[in-house]
Amino acid sequence: MKVLQATLNAADMLEAGLPGWPFGMQDVVRFSELDPLNHVNNAAYLSWFETARIGYIMEYGLTGMTHSEADPQIVVRRQLVDYLKPILFGECYVVALRTTRIKPSSLVMEYGVFVDGQQRATGETVIVSLTQDGTNRLPWRPEAVGRMIERDGAKTVGFQ
Amino acid sequence: MKVLQATLNAADMLEAGLPGWPFGMQDVVRFSELDPLNHVNNAAYLSWFETARIGYIMEYGLTGMTHSEADPQIVVRRQLVDYLKPILFGECYVVALRTTRIKPSSLVMEYGVFVDGQQRATGETVIVSLTQDGTNRLPWRPEAVGRMIERDGAKTVGFQ
Amino acid sequence: MKVLQATLNAADMLEAGLPGWPFGMQDVVRFSELDPLNHVNNAAYLSWFETARIGYIMEYGLTGMTHSEADPQIVVRRQLVDYLKPILFGECYVVALRTTRIKPSSLVMEYGVFVDGQQRATGETVIVSLTQDGTNRLPWRPEAVGRMIERDGAKTVGFQ
Amino acid sequence: MKVLQATLNAADMLEAGLPGWPFGMQDVVRFSELDPLNHVNNAAYLSWFETARIGYIMEYGLTGMTHSEADPQIVVRRQLVDYLKPILFGECYVVALRTTRIKPSSLVMEYGVFVDGQQRATGETVIVSLTQDGTNRLPWRPEAVGRMIERDGAKTVGFQ
Repeated sequence: MKVLQATLNAADMLEAGLPGWPFGMQDVVRFSELDPLNHVNNAAYLSWFETARIGYIMEYGLTGMTHSEADPQIVVRRQLVDYLKPILFGECYVVALRTTRIKPSSLVMEYGVFVDGQQRATGETVIVSLTQDGTNRLPWRPEAVGRMIERDGAKTVGFQ
Repeated sequence: MKVLQATLNAADMLEAGLPGWPFGMQDVVRFSELDPLNHVNNAAYLSWFETARIGYIMEYGLTGMTHSEADPQIVVRRQLVDYLKPILFGECYVVALRTTRIKPSSLVMEYGVFVDGQQRATGETVIVSLTQDGTNRLPWRPEAVGRMIERDGAKTVGFQ
Repeated sequence: MKVLQATLNAADMLEAGLPGWPFGMQDVVRFSELDPLNHVNNAAYLSWFETARIGYIMEYGLTGMTHSEADPQIVVRRQLVDYLKPILFGECYVVALRTTRIKPSSLVMEYGVFVDGQQRATGETVIVSLTQDGTNRLPWRPEAVGRMIERDGAKTVGFQ
Repeated sequence: MKVLQATLNAADMLEAGLPGWPFGMQDVVRFSELDPLNHVNNAAYLSWFETARIGYIMEYGLTGMTHSEADPQIVVRRQLVDYLKPILFGECYVVALRTTRIKPSSLVMEYGVFVDGQQRATGETVIVSLTQDGTNRLPWRPEAVGRMIERDGAKTVGFQ
């Protein structure tokens, strides 16, 4: 059995030669992610980031991904990607992910995309925590904030 | 490390409780594959089949996926899917795949999609082997045909 | 202003040289629908069919696409596509659509995909009408059935 | 015939109440672009930008989109999107596009996404002009640079 995809914790990331990244997602490029230039299309990176981010969000307890009132609806407010070097069919990549800045109901995550330890892309996402009906901000859960500070070294801004 | 995706051979498939399927691909449902009905969108199954099929094609030696003249260009001529039961976010599925009928330059594959041993979908694809410029048929390689007969129990039709 | 996408009624379809098809959707191939073989990927056709089908469903009044109890949840049970000839970047295509057979809570639609009057693909979808919670069948609305019989020449099966 | 998608020139954009944008692409949200939050998924915006950008690139003569040596291979180096307000199923949107800064073999484009004149998103892309083999930079064609200066008011940087 050839294993290709996995969620990686801090120990796995260290072993993969990626210290400083406490969370990652490993996978292999699919044919459906390629475009006629024969490399991964730029839009596919956003789906990779999404997959890694949702794994992170559930692992750190930011939401239970349910529609209950206690769970925030988390939406993307900003997305940035720098494409450093093309990624090709069949290449095995790691999306590394960490939170850098936390405000009471939003935060900034940064990404690195690596193939064999070589950085191929960087990214940044701003996400916002809303009530289920989307009309108001819902503050992050303190225990999730604690994990992001402890594991990721995230800085807090605007908390009292 | 939580393992989420893998290529499965006949022994792996037996262990997964899926005898009679010599090849499979295991993966977990991504958020990007869902639609507003909160289940995997019907189009996503075709990308799953494609990923499994390309793994199969390379494993069995039908093509090297290059643009060299010796390698056929393999195109999809027909695609059928029966959606038996919805597949949900985070579910781990196996796409099982085998060739049932082989003609000199085309063949029929069938698929089963399973979650915890329960069948959620079936599928069938007809693929055709063409020259690189797409203008003529290119016969399958005898050693690849041999593997499909031996491993999958595929029937041949129209060979002399 | 160069027009690229449109919903077509029976008169438009006649004018486009496609008699017998009372409904269609016209669009132009996007770069994001291509794969490394430089033609439209086989999975993209299912999204085209979906776009045309949802337009049809709303036009014929099969559902209002809401989550109210009176509206059925319509799911795809079977999907077939025959790829006759590749479709290329920038080509303008028409997805023609009609219902051929109607049962009390399911129906069969057929599709033709045309470029400059030349047929490039055919398709067939079986859809099923369910209650909003997905647990029971919900019969089609009589006025929608009437429109499918009158406009499409659909045959009914199993009605009392 | 209900018209939904089109390439818009400066006169069309003025008429649409979007002065200062010399180029745009109008379309309607497809079901396949939605995610379980019932709005357009963040990755879909990159495909919209791509569609508009390729239309722009061909219209302004930056490349003929061929594989000939005279045509550059244009790749995305950076992508930024700000999601201001969700976009919903069936909404008709305009992607407005203009070049703001041009270097000899790269440039910066900015986007606005509008629904009924209301801005829903902004974006920025850096693209780079490469030789067909991807190993070297290929300078922009002077006539294309001239059009971007004249029509878009683009600033040039680093030209001699």
